[in-house]
Amino acid sequence: MVVLRRVLGDELRRLRTAQGRTLRDVSATARVSLGYLSEVERGHKEPSSELLAAICTALETPLSTVLIRVGTEIAALENAAAPVQLHPVEAPAGSAAVVAA
Amino acid sequence: MVVLRRVLGDELRRLRTAQGRTLRDVSATARVSLGYLSEVERGHKEPSSELLAAICTALETPLSTVLIRVGTEIAALENAAAPVQLHPVEAPAGSAAVVAA
Repeated sequence: MVVLRRVLGDELRRLRTAQGRTLRDVSATARVSLGYLSEVERGHKEPSSELLAAICTALETPLSTVLIRVGTEIAALENAAAPVQLHPVEAPAGSAAVVAA
Repeated sequence: MVVLRRVLGDELRRLRTAQGRTLRDVSATARVSLGYLSEVERGHKEPSSELLAAICTALETPLSTVLIRVGTEIAALENAAAPVQLHPVEAPAGSAAVVAA
């Protein structure tokens, strides 16, 4: 199952490292503890709406941008997790082929 | 400030009512208490990733769809909340107009 807090944590870490910033810097700017931010990035803690907003502000990225990126990433994971359907295909005379659609 | 759990709660309620379903029906399908679902819809409780996934499944809507809709709604609120900038405009001779850009 896709777990939102893991995908969200990955996205927040990606944003922070792309800016070349440390946990210490972003946690101080967001006024959250370094340990808490680290747990959020690892998908171990669910941030409250207020703390997520503070982290996004510290990362100078709108909350909407983070949510849409996370939603898009989850859509890809949902599609990847969808079961592959095998369809028998009309076989040419003389063969007995069954191929994946 | 835009509060994620309120926008999320509104979206979950909108989905449920658009399907003509009751809190009782959706909470039973999602295996959460009716009171808890009601609090989530009113933006009073932060659902965990697992409970949000269960509610989305009960609403037969991918989590990704809910997140992208919520992100889009929050983008509109962020834009509406942005301060209006007033720019002095070159005034025609004889006037002293200052207009909103």
